[in-house]
Amino acid sequence: MSLKSFLIGSPIESIKEKHERLTKTMGLAVFSSDALSSVAYGPEEILFALVLGGTALLHYSIPIAAGIVLLVAIVATSYFQTIHAYPSGGGAYIVAKENLGTYPGLVAGAALLIDYVLTVTVSISAGIAAITSAFPALREHTVVMCLVAILLIMVVNLRGVRESGRVFSIPVYIFIGSLVLLIVVSIAKYSFSSPPPIQEYKEATSNGIAFFIILRAFASGCATLTGIEAVSNGVRAFKAPEARNAGITLIWMAITLGVLTMGIAFFADHYGILPNENETVLSQLARTVFSKGIIYYIIQFATSLILILAANTSFADFPRLSSIMASDRYLPRQLSSRGDKLVFSNGIVILGFLSVLLIVLFRGDTHALIPLYAVGVFTAFTLSQAGMVKHWLNARGKGWLKNILINGIGTVTTAIVLVIIAVEKFTHGAWIVLIAIPSLVLLTQKIHQHYLSVAKQLSLDYCLTEEKEFKHHSVIIAVSGIQQAVISAIKYAKALSDDVVAVYVCIDPVETARIKAKWDKYCMGIPLLILESPYRSVVEPLIDYIDEVRDTYKEGVITVVLPEFVPSKWWHHLLHNQTALFIKGVILFKKGVVSTSVPFHLKS
Amino acid sequence: MSLKSFLIGSPIESIKEKHERLTKTMGLAVFSSDALSSVAYGPEEILFALVLGGTALLHYSIPIAAGIVLLVAIVATSYFQTIHAYPSGGGAYIVAKENLGTYPGLVAGAALLIDYVLTVTVSISAGIAAITSAFPALREHTVVMCLVAILLIMVVNLRGVRESGRVFSIPVYIFIGSLVLLIVVSIAKYSFSSPPPIQEYKEATSNGIAFFIILRAFASGCATLTGIEAVSNGVRAFKAPEARNAGITLIWMAITLGVLTMGIAFFADHYGILPNENETVLSQLARTVFSKGIIYYIIQFATSLILILAANTSFADFPRLSSIMASDRYLPRQLSSRGDKLVFSNGIVILGFLSVLLIVLFRGDTHALIPLYAVGVFTAFTLSQAGMVKHWLNARGKGWLKNILINGIGTVTTAIVLVIIAVEKFTHGAWIVLIAIPSLVLLTQKIHQHYLSVAKQLSLDYCLTEEKEFKHHSVIIAVSGIQQAVISAIKYAKALSDDVVAVYVCIDPVETARIKAKWDKYCMGIPLLILESPYRSVVEPLIDYIDEVRDTYKEGVITVVLPEFVPSKWWHHLLHNQTALFIKGVILFKKGVVSTSVPFHLKS
Repeated sequence: MSLKSFLIGSPIESIKEKHERLTKTMGLAVFSSDALSSVAYGPEEILFALVLGGTALLHYSIPIAAGIVLLVAIVATSYFQTIHAYPSGGGAYIVAKENLGTYPGLVAGAALLIDYVLTVTVSISAGIAAITSAFPALREHTVVMCLVAILLIMVVNLRGVRESGRVFSIPVYIFIGSLVLLIVVSIAKYSFSSPPPIQEYKEATSNGIAFFIILRAFASGCATLTGIEAVSNGVRAFKAPEARNAGITLIWMAITLGVLTMGIAFFADHYGILPNENETVLSQLARTVFSKGIIYYIIQFATSLILILAANTSFADFPRLSSIMASDRYLPRQLSSRGDKLVFSNGIVILGFLSVLLIVLFRGDTHALIPLYAVGVFTAFTLSQAGMVKHWLNARGKGWLKNILINGIGTVTTAIVLVIIAVEKFTHGAWIVLIAIPSLVLLTQKIHQHYLSVAKQLSLDYCLTEEKEFKHHSVIIAVSGIQQAVISAIKYAKALSDDVVAVYVCIDPVETARIKAKWDKYCMGIPLLILESPYRSVVEPLIDYIDEVRDTYKEGVITVVLPEFVPSKWWHHLLHNQTALFIKGVILFKKGVVSTSVPFHLKS
Repeated sequence: MSLKSFLIGSPIESIKEKHERLTKTMGLAVFSSDALSSVAYGPEEILFALVLGGTALLHYSIPIAAGIVLLVAIVATSYFQTIHAYPSGGGAYIVAKENLGTYPGLVAGAALLIDYVLTVTVSISAGIAAITSAFPALREHTVVMCLVAILLIMVVNLRGVRESGRVFSIPVYIFIGSLVLLIVVSIAKYSFSSPPPIQEYKEATSNGIAFFIILRAFASGCATLTGIEAVSNGVRAFKAPEARNAGITLIWMAITLGVLTMGIAFFADHYGILPNENETVLSQLARTVFSKGIIYYIIQFATSLILILAANTSFADFPRLSSIMASDRYLPRQLSSRGDKLVFSNGIVILGFLSVLLIVLFRGDTHALIPLYAVGVFTAFTLSQAGMVKHWLNARGKGWLKNILINGIGTVTTAIVLVIIAVEKFTHGAWIVLIAIPSLVLLTQKIHQHYLSVAKQLSLDYCLTEEKEFKHHSVIIAVSGIQQAVISAIKYAKALSDDVVAVYVCIDPVETARIKAKWDKYCMGIPLLILESPYRSVVEPLIDYIDEVRDTYKEGVITVVLPEFVPSKWWHHLLHNQTALFIKGVILFKKGVVSTSVPFHLKS
């Protein structure tokens, strides 16, 4: 059994594609882990931003959380509409491209692709950081642990969509269950016990500054929305009826996200929890409610896992989105083909590679990347919603005014949030996205132009009537000595044409004389031509000779036959002259000349 | 003009090899810079080792320096003998191999090769360190400066032997001249002025400990001898009479080395100079004698340069030694061929690559490597001298007893020093050499076995009487669609044989139907065969079909013709499926099957 089949398993037939689809339960696990993981840091981000203005502002966390939950509702409703309008998969790329034009589509696509890479990098390192803060001895192995986590998720995804759904459902549902329990127990305690003294914080900031701090807190909290678009990109991964199942999954995700965010924000405020570098807000809350019992540790463990699994959503969506863009010829076509397990393996591997690269570059400390990805997400949100508005305007079907209203509100809100985030986070690195997105868009354009140009060059529509056959076939054997591999090459050359010449480039006159003397005995009647080379180059005299032959037979074709050693061990390649390879590289660019290696298999 | 011809210049004809040889003056510059550079740190190493036992031991620097000068005389005399006994180049590898056997030869060769790499790494970083201690602002660019220095020396060496002699002679002679001036002026001052009070240092250590400290100081000082073997490896680089010119150069080098080492050790002691982390001994001495005038700065500058140029000796010797070992089939054969400028370019490039690797790995701080290379040098010395003893014993020519005596003293002294260094420096990293040398020897053995096995497999001595021609030639065109590149492939296939079949692997039935419908119009009468592929693999069905054909025509040969795009820009390769490459990789290992790419040149 090969390593590949051990890791990935045996291939799946094309006709079984439908069996590989996800149920709603699995779909929620696969596509919501990114969104739900933000519960672990969203409310905390708000508190951290507010505390800069003094503890007096901390109570604002509740209205801010409410605003974010409202935003979740608006965006989810908008995407719900999109899923039903584009049941074959309505990601921001498709919606923006179909309704707003190619460029907005590419911008949305580029923003999402970049985001997926960042999500993997950031969530994996956050998850590993959660583990290393529990076990500081592991800290020096941060990078290795991150890489192992990425490889693990990558391999599970390469094993197929259902496999990743099966494996990763358990931790996701443990996370959801334990947090719901946390909130239910909190509510029970809140209802049946006497209320603790209301936290009175000192006033500390002027109203003007307070406004900006609250705005920043809101912008930080918007990280909660990342991943909410995941379902819309993955509609085709669901069992039929795809749109209906995806829509229901989206609603469940939005409700879970809203309840958990609001609950955590409310009770964090209720218990007067302060943000703290050494312990997360969620950990403090869980400790307050459950003390340090088994449930506390389950919550902590599930939190680390969900942070790591947020990456899994990217592994589900990045390959899908890139395959769609590749089918449209905006990305390399290799991304559009399905692998052994019917998943877009190349996309999975490339996402893995890029995130490993970022992890290594940033040595596992990816905090700097966090501001970047909210910008990308909201760019995609805004373009996708605006695309939907245009869609209803064009279609004017039943209830179009209501639909425009919903997506219109979505567009305006997400656009405003985008501006807030971009301004607030500009100096924190958001400017990088303003370089990265246009660069990727430019690249997709270049790729597209290339494919169009190739298609035109390959097209048979411009074909000159009837193709003529070649009038002559000259075969030239490049000979490097007189041995078995050359004999094999001669034998093969004789099967190609009657015009066969062997050519030897003379570097050392003694060696040349030796070969000449032996030639006739083994040559099978093929003439040997000796070429002089005062500067010891093997390639130049050979190329000159080829040009000569080409000039002689203008309507002919030339085959250059090269004997090639095939070593039994890979490192043996290093022990043989790569002259043949070099000759082939030069010939590749000559019109009317084809090179052929005749392999000679070495035993050891 | 290409970058290559700009950097390296135009090629030199083979017959002009003799004009490229070195005069004695140039030879001294090329082959002695390594040995002479040790003047810059040899006496200092002795003082640093001695001062650990208290200042009382510092006066021992003079007898230790005298001992080292004696060692220089012994080793130089031994090598002088070797050069005349082996006028065609008598490096340690050849002498040990011819007289002591293959293994001792390989050990000496491996020790020297490793040493040359270490010499480049250590001397470049020492030279750059000298510059950065003068200009601390440059310190953060250490690695880049090291790389630039290596590349510079590499390029000059690739331009030819004479070129490197010409370019690098000037700094070497400035260094020698300024140090001779330093010693002459010191002698003059010493003779004409009243002597300074003799330094009285306090007694500080017991006699037993003192002995070991003195031994360690001697071992450290032996670094002075590194590079003394350089001339013996490069005899063939000198103008005729090679042995005589090389011998005279060796004597001059030894005299210069002895005078400078002794002079510096004597006056450092005379002026009571103490070793010091912040200023080198040579700098202190020059400052004492000349104050901080122009000559002081010339000495400092020339010292940095000679340290960097010590690497040049390795660039002269490593490629020569590796070409000799490659001709004997102990290293990859590519190392044995001369490049455009008649130098062994591949060896130069590999030495550059390896030392760049070490510099980057150690981030330019290669102090840890210094103990390693004294071990290698003395291993080579001992084996080479022992080989000479054996040589005289076998030859018993005129004066053989005297010769045995000279080389015998050489053998015994260098062997003793080898043991002293190995023991003293074992924990400082010398143990690494005890792993590196045997590993390299093992590698050379493996390489040798491979070449012997290949030679046997290729040999025509075992040739089965007359080779028969193939009875049948089947041509299979692997078709990926219906377009111009396929038409070119069909046209070429028709020139090869009358039995041509086009094969298409069906992944998508719709696409397959489209191709079938169009086929007859463009196919030039070639039949199209559709292969089913339930698992979406293009390669497997094709290989199965090839096997089928191979079974049908047992005495035939098969050519698989693949249309291949040749993009006009390198990055366009990434945009095309590498399926053709993969198919070729699989076919390469099938007997009786040859694959051929028919290039189709894309314009953009």
